[in-house]
Amino acid sequence: MATTLPTAGSAAQTSSLRSRYAAVRVETERMAAPLSAEDQMVQACAEASPVKWHRAHTTWFFETFVLREFAAGYKPFNEAFHWLFNSYYISLGEEIPEKKLRASFSRPALDEIVAYRAHVDAAMELFLSAGDVPDEAVRRIVLGLNHEQQHLELALTDIKFAFFTNPLHPPYRDMAAPRNESVPLSWTKFEGGLREIGYPLDASHPEDFCFDNETPRHTVYVPPFTIANRLATCAEYLEFMTDNGYGRAELWLSEGWDAVIREQWQAPLYWHRDASDKTGWKVFTLGAWRGLSGLLHTPVCHISFFEADAFARWSGRRLPTEAEYEIAAADIPSNGTLLEDGTLHPQSASTQELAQMIGDCWEWTASPYTGYPGYRPLPGALGEYNGKFMSSQMVLRGGSCATPASHIRSTYRNFFPPATRWQFSGIRLAQ
Amino acid sequence: MATTLPTAGSAAQTSSLRSRYAAVRVETERMAAPLSAEDQMVQACAEASPVKWHRAHTTWFFETFVLREFAAGYKPFNEAFHWLFNSYYISLGEEIPEKKLRASFSRPALDEIVAYRAHVDAAMELFLSAGDVPDEAVRRIVLGLNHEQQHLELALTDIKFAFFTNPLHPPYRDMAAPRNESVPLSWTKFEGGLREIGYPLDASHPEDFCFDNETPRHTVYVPPFTIANRLATCAEYLEFMTDNGYGRAELWLSEGWDAVIREQWQAPLYWHRDASDKTGWKVFTLGAWRGLSGLLHTPVCHISFFEADAFARWSGRRLPTEAEYEIAAADIPSNGTLLEDGTLHPQSASTQELAQMIGDCWEWTASPYTGYPGYRPLPGALGEYNGKFMSSQMVLRGGSCATPASHIRSTYRNFFPPATRWQFSGIRLAQ
Amino acid sequence: MATTLPTAGSAAQTSSLRSRYAAVRVETERMAAPLSAEDQMVQACAEASPVKWHRAHTTWFFETFVLREFAAGYKPFNEAFHWLFNSYYISLGEEIPEKKLRASFSRPALDEIVAYRAHVDAAMELFLSAGDVPDEAVRRIVLGLNHEQQHLELALTDIKFAFFTNPLHPPYRDMAAPRNESVPLSWTKFEGGLREIGYPLDASHPEDFCFDNETPRHTVYVPPFTIANRLATCAEYLEFMTDNGYGRAELWLSEGWDAVIREQWQAPLYWHRDASDKTGWKVFTLGAWRGLSGLLHTPVCHISFFEADAFARWSGRRLPTEAEYEIAAADIPSNGTLLEDGTLHPQSASTQELAQMIGDCWEWTASPYTGYPGYRPLPGALGEYNGKFMSSQMVLRGGSCATPASHIRSTYRNFFPPATRWQFSGIRLAQ
Amino acid sequence: MATTLPTAGSAAQTSSLRSRYAAVRVETERMAAPLSAEDQMVQACAEASPVKWHRAHTTWFFETFVLREFAAGYKPFNEAFHWLFNSYYISLGEEIPEKKLRASFSRPALDEIVAYRAHVDAAMELFLSAGDVPDEAVRRIVLGLNHEQQHLELALTDIKFAFFTNPLHPPYRDMAAPRNESVPLSWTKFEGGLREIGYPLDASHPEDFCFDNETPRHTVYVPPFTIANRLATCAEYLEFMTDNGYGRAELWLSEGWDAVIREQWQAPLYWHRDASDKTGWKVFTLGAWRGLSGLLHTPVCHISFFEADAFARWSGRRLPTEAEYEIAAADIPSNGTLLEDGTLHPQSASTQELAQMIGDCWEWTASPYTGYPGYRPLPGALGEYNGKFMSSQMVLRGGSCATPASHIRSTYRNFFPPATRWQFSGIRLAQ
Repeated sequence: MATTLPTAGSAAQTSSLRSRYAAVRVETERMAAPLSAEDQMVQACAEASPVKWHRAHTTWFFETFVLREFAAGYKPFNEAFHWLFNSYYISLGEEIPEKKLRASFSRPALDEIVAYRAHVDAAMELFLSAGDVPDEAVRRIVLGLNHEQQHLELALTDIKFAFFTNPLHPPYRDMAAPRNESVPLSWTKFEGGLREIGYPLDASHPEDFCFDNETPRHTVYVPPFTIANRLATCAEYLEFMTDNGYGRAELWLSEGWDAVIREQWQAPLYWHRDASDKTGWKVFTLGAWRGLSGLLHTPVCHISFFEADAFARWSGRRLPTEAEYEIAAADIPSNGTLLEDGTLHPQSASTQELAQMIGDCWEWTASPYTGYPGYRPLPGALGEYNGKFMSSQMVLRGGSCATPASHIRSTYRNFFPPATRWQFSGIRLAQ
Repeated sequence: MATTLPTAGSAAQTSSLRSRYAAVRVETERMAAPLSAEDQMVQACAEASPVKWHRAHTTWFFETFVLREFAAGYKPFNEAFHWLFNSYYISLGEEIPEKKLRASFSRPALDEIVAYRAHVDAAMELFLSAGDVPDEAVRRIVLGLNHEQQHLELALTDIKFAFFTNPLHPPYRDMAAPRNESVPLSWTKFEGGLREIGYPLDASHPEDFCFDNETPRHTVYVPPFTIANRLATCAEYLEFMTDNGYGRAELWLSEGWDAVIREQWQAPLYWHRDASDKTGWKVFTLGAWRGLSGLLHTPVCHISFFEADAFARWSGRRLPTEAEYEIAAADIPSNGTLLEDGTLHPQSASTQELAQMIGDCWEWTASPYTGYPGYRPLPGALGEYNGKFMSSQMVLRGGSCATPASHIRSTYRNFFPPATRWQFSGIRLAQ
Repeated sequence: MATTLPTAGSAAQTSSLRSRYAAVRVETERMAAPLSAEDQMVQACAEASPVKWHRAHTTWFFETFVLREFAAGYKPFNEAFHWLFNSYYISLGEEIPEKKLRASFSRPALDEIVAYRAHVDAAMELFLSAGDVPDEAVRRIVLGLNHEQQHLELALTDIKFAFFTNPLHPPYRDMAAPRNESVPLSWTKFEGGLREIGYPLDASHPEDFCFDNETPRHTVYVPPFTIANRLATCAEYLEFMTDNGYGRAELWLSEGWDAVIREQWQAPLYWHRDASDKTGWKVFTLGAWRGLSGLLHTPVCHISFFEADAFARWSGRRLPTEAEYEIAAADIPSNGTLLEDGTLHPQSASTQELAQMIGDCWEWTASPYTGYPGYRPLPGALGEYNGKFMSSQMVLRGGSCATPASHIRSTYRNFFPPATRWQFSGIRLAQ
Repeated sequence: MATTLPTAGSAAQTSSLRSRYAAVRVETERMAAPLSAEDQMVQACAEASPVKWHRAHTTWFFETFVLREFAAGYKPFNEAFHWLFNSYYISLGEEIPEKKLRASFSRPALDEIVAYRAHVDAAMELFLSAGDVPDEAVRRIVLGLNHEQQHLELALTDIKFAFFTNPLHPPYRDMAAPRNESVPLSWTKFEGGLREIGYPLDASHPEDFCFDNETPRHTVYVPPFTIANRLATCAEYLEFMTDNGYGRAELWLSEGWDAVIREQWQAPLYWHRDASDKTGWKVFTLGAWRGLSGLLHTPVCHISFFEADAFARWSGRRLPTEAEYEIAAADIPSNGTLLEDGTLHPQSASTQELAQMIGDCWEWTASPYTGYPGYRPLPGALGEYNGKFMSSQMVLRGGSCATPASHIRSTYRNFFPPATRWQFSGIRLAQ
């Protein structure tokens, strides 16, 4: 947010956009590189999508909202792709392939998707290098890049789940042992009072960006609070498990307890019993199985809101609200593990101070996901991006080891249903 | 809240409790009077319970939490009832009859439930008339009475659904035509700023009461807002329907649109097409079918949060937050239709000013149900009353035509999942 | 079948019909007598119906198919009952109340059903005493009486399941200890060859009766076979269980094994573990719980076809075909326990010879339920009685302790889906 | 069956086996040739499997039942494949990958499966060329080849469904227009009486083969019957549809009618409305969409037993029993379209005489699938092949255009649940 933005319509702006576009698109390719055409077809659960689909759908975004509308003479790669790679933009008014059908997407072949990406990239380069890009196009390109970064993170977590589901449990790629150093838990106090939260969007700079759900910046009253210096660790979570955390209804929200029973949760997602590790557990990672003993001081991750909430109750603490998180994180530089670090897994805190506020794990907050006072969705199909999901979901903050650095900020609001576990989601306590 | 409470432990307190106990218990009997033993067995949907069960379970509350613990020498009516009429108090640690089994409750017979109520009432009378009631017992009795009033309202809505489900559609009892006068929609403005909401519980008076979820009273910052002078009417809702409100995805939250498709919603619950009424609709009420034309200016009711939200979006308005409601309602005397009015149905507003803030219909707010800052559930089994439901539900405010007057206040927080329709739930707009 | 039938249209025929009608109707009343109005409302599983519904629906049959069509000037009791108590006769073309809604049938009240029965009984008496009953009416009355006898048996098994589901497990009525004497297993041989099976219906006598699915009598070729002298006992079944019968997939049909896993079957329906009985089991009967040790030599009952089949495979035997059963039973007089014996439970065999061929338990056969060669359903709505169920069901033969003596014969074909357990269904081995 | 079999253990036998093995294996490769690695991963419905899985599982059969047991010194390709490609042979006692997980099988990659096939083929060649193959090994190889032929047919129908599910509806490969000539319906009479059905297996020739469910050959009594000279055509089925066949409950078995309502059947699988064809319909084939007008005289296919049964009832006819089919087909040479004809679709009859008894479409019979008198499954894991499916399925006879010629014979018993539609299943009438 502190970045100095280039002047709207300037050559500097265009140049910045071109390089940003190239950087984001190449990051997607880098993510996909270790995966075969077959790997990119897997959809291992209803929430997940095939990597091939992620690659096509993010490309469709630029074709649909930028090239078709602003690039004179643009020839679509394949007319069928216009409805085929639409996902949820109901107001576009075309037949939408059911999400569940994505598993049948042997066609178009991966080769065609690769060609589609190249076709759109070339057209975008042409469009951007011609200069004189309208402000609305700039806004959409920046939105499209953020959209692609979201899908990049989703694709990584989808493929993790896919490889976990595969009976052979292959690794995604080589992964170094995570940093696993013990850092004592301590608490940072914050004064309460009237504070501002939300992103102060500068509408005069089309390249300035946040998602609509981060606006408007507005006043909240927050009582004094104290927040943990780091994320809860696997070791701490194991104590909760050992203390029969999954067996005591009184620790859980009613809906959470139903999930424990129905899904037979006994540990975080990706933990399996393994007598050969001294903790009795092994953990599936993007580098395949690791003994839990090598991860004890790393943040616990792949837990649901219900588990985070039960752990907090068991600890005699609570989860922070999103306002508390944002106030605490406001002046913290990025200080945790992000996608570019290439670790593929959260690491133990690297400092005794307020650590991991950005990166490592998304932090479940106590805040249900709703619109800020005066919230207005974007007009048209783009307005279906955030606002329509504002029921029965919880806010997560702070990004994870799978989030690109240029994508995350302290005002960023992620959201998932409270039983969701396949993201890198963890716990920071408050009191 | 302004009531002067009797001094703790005084004869006045005991006398007040005795008369309050008798009044609430007799109100339950009055509700059940028009119903046969067979009627009181019906459980027409998963959320509902048989009236017989409501009558037994509320009695069980006094036996379990008051008589068994405080009344020396109390002999339980039937030991089996201790686990049989427990509902959701998991921490009591006994086997809990599945809610779905309630439909099999031909035994105990209604006669036995009637005898159970008499047994407990006699023991309570004995206990209260002996004087010297411990503060904790007073607190539990008051809680038990509020608990019974909640079940009274639920029982009325359950039986409405049961009679609607019955192919013969019998009336519950005679019902006068609701007041149906047109009152123009207008708007009341409120200054924003720092305000206090929540109930200021006086712990030194055990008879002072609110539910734990209304506490602690706390500071919130609220921007200036405007609120509608009355509930939305059937006529206004019919306009939404005529304008294809149920067919336009862009008006709905994503989860709400899924519900529209899955449940094939085309109108509020209890509305059926009927060519013989000039509106084309008839409405099932506790007095059986009524033509919609006689209800056009009464509040629309039996709608879900999703419908309320879509209607507000279609209107270009929004739903109020619970803080906004509470601020607006704070100084309003009870001004709507409550259970004691005996109308069995919401009535059109009786004033041009801020009307129906208490009574007629529960008002869906834009606020997800969570704990207030510093919220603490009651200790033990009683703590399972409210706190464990704090996920995926929305707050409703203000009571309905089925709520007893002594049960409702402006700080009262009701809550249901957003797709719920069988309560008397309606809409007040804000902007 | 050997009965000498009265001449069609004769006074003897009419008199016989009147007394038969009275006898069957009063048997239904006797069955219902121990049950309260509440008991008669319970529908404890999807296959079951409330006793009140059985009583109304069987009455509806006479009103619909006899009185409305043949009794001049008959005034229906209540026009709404015409569609309300229809069950599955789709071709009658009226709206059919969903079977699942039967649980909401608090209205009509039991009193009204009792009055309905009296109204129809009076009209039937008038119709029959007027003499000159058309042959088609006689046929329908006889069909209606058999229909009512079927519902009588179903009602008894439905109420058994209802009381089992009820957490208080009440008895239906007092029940004497079943005869429980050990009878050695032996085998009876039958020559094979061309044989006739099916009922030789005498169309010239309208009172001659069988269900359409028992016709036409036809030739089959049957290889020589051997059949067990009695039903398999609880003691024998317990050996199968002790030998891990429920844990060995190789003993089960694939669909049966799926049911074992899905339903977590570990014993027959109504068996519960009970350390206080020396067998470790107790059994729920119409007289409430009994220790299994007092039932060891009684036939095992309330098992599915899958369990019967697995037990037979474990025994190194097989189930008989329906032709084998019918050939073996052809010349056997009724020799087992039937409804009129009033035992409410199957008894141990009373003879060393071919015992229990009629009565005690329905015997699962190895025969899927299909039409006999040349089978023709009855015309019109009555044709929906049997033929339309001829897929995915298995034939049972021989009647049970809940079957009226006048209802059962060796050619009688009962049928249920192979996972059905709530009937008195047992096992006879063949080889 | 009339084939002269080589002497057991002879060089002729071994040579015959080697060439048969090679022929079957290469046919599988030919089927897979038009499909990409991505195509071979699709599992479009629960009954289907990925082509890659079919190719691996059939290979696993030879490795598991032949090479591991009989080929001295055989080195398995990959130990993990031993449990990975097991399907339903529960008695092998290893963990079985859930069928539903097959969609996650991006690993092993197709390349590995291809190598697996090559590895096993080389080992089989070595084993067979060494001579002196034990009789039991011969039996298993012949069984394995028949097993692979079954999977070949399933793979073709699975890929048809997969491409139909794919929103782009690609063709499998070029397909010539089917022969579409009108042949009048006529009837052939057969005398009834005692007849033999079933396969007369010569146990002394290990290469003699039938599935265990075709044995033992046994006597049946069959009344005289008449059978249609050809399969029912699309034109005839369209008449049934036009006459509201899918809307008249009285034409359907109860379970079938439930399926019509639940699945919203209005036409055979693969028929879609298309105003541009004069019939109003187009049909998806392995060569993609065809107008129905070019297929009117081809056999209707991809219908369930319920549809075949309803069509027969509407026609005033019935389906033949499996005995009737077998008697009628006994002396008919192969006279319909089989896999080797390469048409990929059933063709109109090529003769006025009894046509299409073998090939074109599997013919639903009126016979539920049960064991023949004296039926014994194979011992051990191989016994799980047929017998355990003998409930709730119907017999189909005659093979289809996707069945290899060397795989089908008049005694062959195929079986599927009655709602199954994705096989090439059609109708022959009898009366």
